[in-house]
Amino acid sequence: MTDGDLLQDRRQYVADSENRFVEELCELLRIPSISTRAEHAADVARAARWIAEKMRRAGLEAVEVITKEGQCPLVYGEWLGAGPQAPTVLFYCHYDVQPAFLADGWRSDPFQPVIRDGKLYARGAVDSKSHVMIQLHAVEAALAKGALPINVKYLFEGEEESSGAHILSFVREQPQKLHADYAVASDGSMPDRGQPALVYALRGIVSCELRVQGPARDLHSGHYGGNVHNPAQALCEILAQLHDENSTVTVPGFYDQVIELGETERAELAQALPWIEREWHEVTEAPQAWGESDYNLHERTGARPTLEINGIAGGYAEEGFKTVLPAQAIAKISCRLVARQEPAQILRLLADHIARLTPPTVTSELRSAGYGEPAVVLELGTAVMEAALTAYERAWGKKPLLLREGGSIPIVASFERELGLPMALMPFGYKGCGAHGPNEHVYLDMVQKGIHTMLHFYDELARQHAAAV
Amino acid sequence: MTDGDLLQDRRQYVADSENRFVEELCELLRIPSISTRAEHAADVARAARWIAEKMRRAGLEAVEVITKEGQCPLVYGEWLGAGPQAPTVLFYCHYDVQPAFLADGWRSDPFQPVIRDGKLYARGAVDSKSHVMIQLHAVEAALAKGALPINVKYLFEGEEESSGAHILSFVREQPQKLHADYAVASDGSMPDRGQPALVYALRGIVSCELRVQGPARDLHSGHYGGNVHNPAQALCEILAQLHDENSTVTVPGFYDQVIELGETERAELAQALPWIEREWHEVTEAPQAWGESDYNLHERTGARPTLEINGIAGGYAEEGFKTVLPAQAIAKISCRLVARQEPAQILRLLADHIARLTPPTVTSELRSAGYGEPAVVLELGTAVMEAALTAYERAWGKKPLLLREGGSIPIVASFERELGLPMALMPFGYKGCGAHGPNEHVYLDMVQKGIHTMLHFYDELARQHAAAV
Repeated sequence: MTDGDLLQDRRQYVADSENRFVEELCELLRIPSISTRAEHAADVARAARWIAEKMRRAGLEAVEVITKEGQCPLVYGEWLGAGPQAPTVLFYCHYDVQPAFLADGWRSDPFQPVIRDGKLYARGAVDSKSHVMIQLHAVEAALAKGALPINVKYLFEGEEESSGAHILSFVREQPQKLHADYAVASDGSMPDRGQPALVYALRGIVSCELRVQGPARDLHSGHYGGNVHNPAQALCEILAQLHDENSTVTVPGFYDQVIELGETERAELAQALPWIEREWHEVTEAPQAWGESDYNLHERTGARPTLEINGIAGGYAEEGFKTVLPAQAIAKISCRLVARQEPAQILRLLADHIARLTPPTVTSELRSAGYGEPAVVLELGTAVMEAALTAYERAWGKKPLLLREGGSIPIVASFERELGLPMALMPFGYKGCGAHGPNEHVYLDMVQKGIHTMLHFYDELARQHAAAV
Repeated sequence: MTDGDLLQDRRQYVADSENRFVEELCELLRIPSISTRAEHAADVARAARWIAEKMRRAGLEAVEVITKEGQCPLVYGEWLGAGPQAPTVLFYCHYDVQPAFLADGWRSDPFQPVIRDGKLYARGAVDSKSHVMIQLHAVEAALAKGALPINVKYLFEGEEESSGAHILSFVREQPQKLHADYAVASDGSMPDRGQPALVYALRGIVSCELRVQGPARDLHSGHYGGNVHNPAQALCEILAQLHDENSTVTVPGFYDQVIELGETERAELAQALPWIEREWHEVTEAPQAWGESDYNLHERTGARPTLEINGIAGGYAEEGFKTVLPAQAIAKISCRLVARQEPAQILRLLADHIARLTPPTVTSELRSAGYGEPAVVLELGTAVMEAALTAYERAWGKKPLLLREGGSIPIVASFERELGLPMALMPFGYKGCGAHGPNEHVYLDMVQKGIHTMLHFYDELARQHAAAV
């Protein structure tokens, strides 16, 4: 049996299993594994057990749900039957999701997946349960139709959307269990459904909450309006000073560790610009682009840091009207980081700046929201990166673009730092799929292509690794 | 029987009824008559029926609950037994309340009144159900112990905290039913529990909602942070420009219809300043006062207009963290008005200003929240004002201060404009009682003194009216 026949067999298995594969993805999507809300801890644990069961059914061995008090479980499984000469790849995905409420503008219950027009709608559909299932279904197909040419380890995380603390400590404490030659993190999105793209750079992140306190209690805005500094107003006055008229962050020192892009890289990034611009208009429908005028959209997203207001609240903003002068107002703020920006240092710089901006009529407090990760730039030209490029090209029929991406996958920095592995990111989402927003969805044809990509990847990596050593 | 004996009898009746009077106030406070939330419409209607029943038991006649489709009921009752030579007084109170949630910082359920340390805690305790019950219990005591020396009409409103539309149309359409010689609006607060104060000026109000829209949907802040103008940030940038560094409102034309105070009035207002300053510190516990430096606290509150942010919301500001770039952000804004400022004109000026401040990267919309009233200044030296001054002095043992007040009672402007009645405001609350905030309460001894004040007022007005005609 030739390699080509074997691949054909595996593709046939995938085609024959299509309905079951979709139904299994739906099953996982029905579990509201929202890691950032404590009341969903049992759902996160249920999702972990469900995945462990699927790993066993796919033919993986040494499957376990790794629990730790107060943290969300990891799920581990491996297949090492390719032998010691073959390379070992550590695969990462996350199975937890962002919060979602019907009232946020969902057309259907975010935890009751529905298919409309080739798209599967549910919270977690693209970020990132389809990635979990692409990995499990691909390895199932490969193992069902003969042995894999590589050894595989899978480590799936349940708190990527919250602290990420469990996997970070696990990677530090158990590097031998995760010993491998390469790592692959499967998560993220491409700027076009028909054009594959490989991400080699991710922004870091640090997040915090700013609380501005004025009076000790909510007051009547008739009695105290004009003589008490309204904390909602003071909050706005502080936040409005965090960017200048060129959309540049005003925090002193904020850009000190940012590295300017070279001309070669700028030219490479410009190749993806048409896709990125088209996708930007299609997805955002914003009146016009915003940001630093010296950088194009790709550069603003992938190579420049940001300071973003993820939430503001103060007083009464619901139905009706309440003439209250609120006691306090809050903002949730996150910074996306690039190059050598350190999360803890950026938080300190921001806290110092906000303390300086706070007028004596109110008090303010900036608190860390608990996690931060520096940016990551992956090495190009490694066997794992080359195998991924070829696999995408075969599955999609097009050479992948190379992208810098604006999001953050904390574990990628940790894998680099702790395990020192050459790594590739393998995203199968489309940026217009509404990750983190309402009506999140995934294109079922992209899920299918994702499985095919992985089947090519197994073979390609075995080849590239043999060529490299 | 002398007038003094009669008064003594009535006071004895009040003393004997104290427990029942408090219990009846509690009964009314248990009804969550929140006019601004549609789901409480049945509670508002229940409160109206309850008040009508109490009016009948107090000895009032022609009692009716006046309903109108889609609006909150009015409650009317009268006693005209003093005859055509005696003056007729139209009394106004409101029985609806602001929203209240335990989570806002209440020590106990806002709709389960409890007494702690001589204070009765519940939403509406001071604003304004104690005023409703002071009026009903005073007239009950007077009618129980002989006839009143004046004719009385009571018109109680159920949507003062929302649109106020019903009473305004009723006053316009039925002036003959409300025909009277004087009017009294009983609502509001004094700056000291032991020092009565009579308010002769109220600020007007106009309220609106500002909505800033950026992208068409919530976005991932990693993918779009740095290239889409965050509407929460844009909202803050707009709101931060509405005051200058001297706390002055920047809306062009905003102060055009404001009349500067004369030196005589400034000197009179300064007399109440020590009370107002003490109360300010005690109630607000804010780090330091804010506002226009050319005006003292009394003037800022009573004679200067404001622009206040009553609520802001955008993105995810709850437990945990959601790295969302929100599609929109909103602010609830109200302006307190003075002198000749017209609500509709101020709203237009504000809308024009905000349209100019809105950058091309987002869109904004300013919508009226549905009601507005100009400021009111009542004539001093009228029979009703003199009677009120004397009544307070007798009940409290101290000459009342004269105050300009920062709040708004829309009906006062309407009574002035439509009925042309000389008018007095008779507040029995204390400013530190938490109107509109959590742990709203009323001092039971002030409620008692309020009833005594009204008993004095009946006699005094009959005397002043006879002297005037």
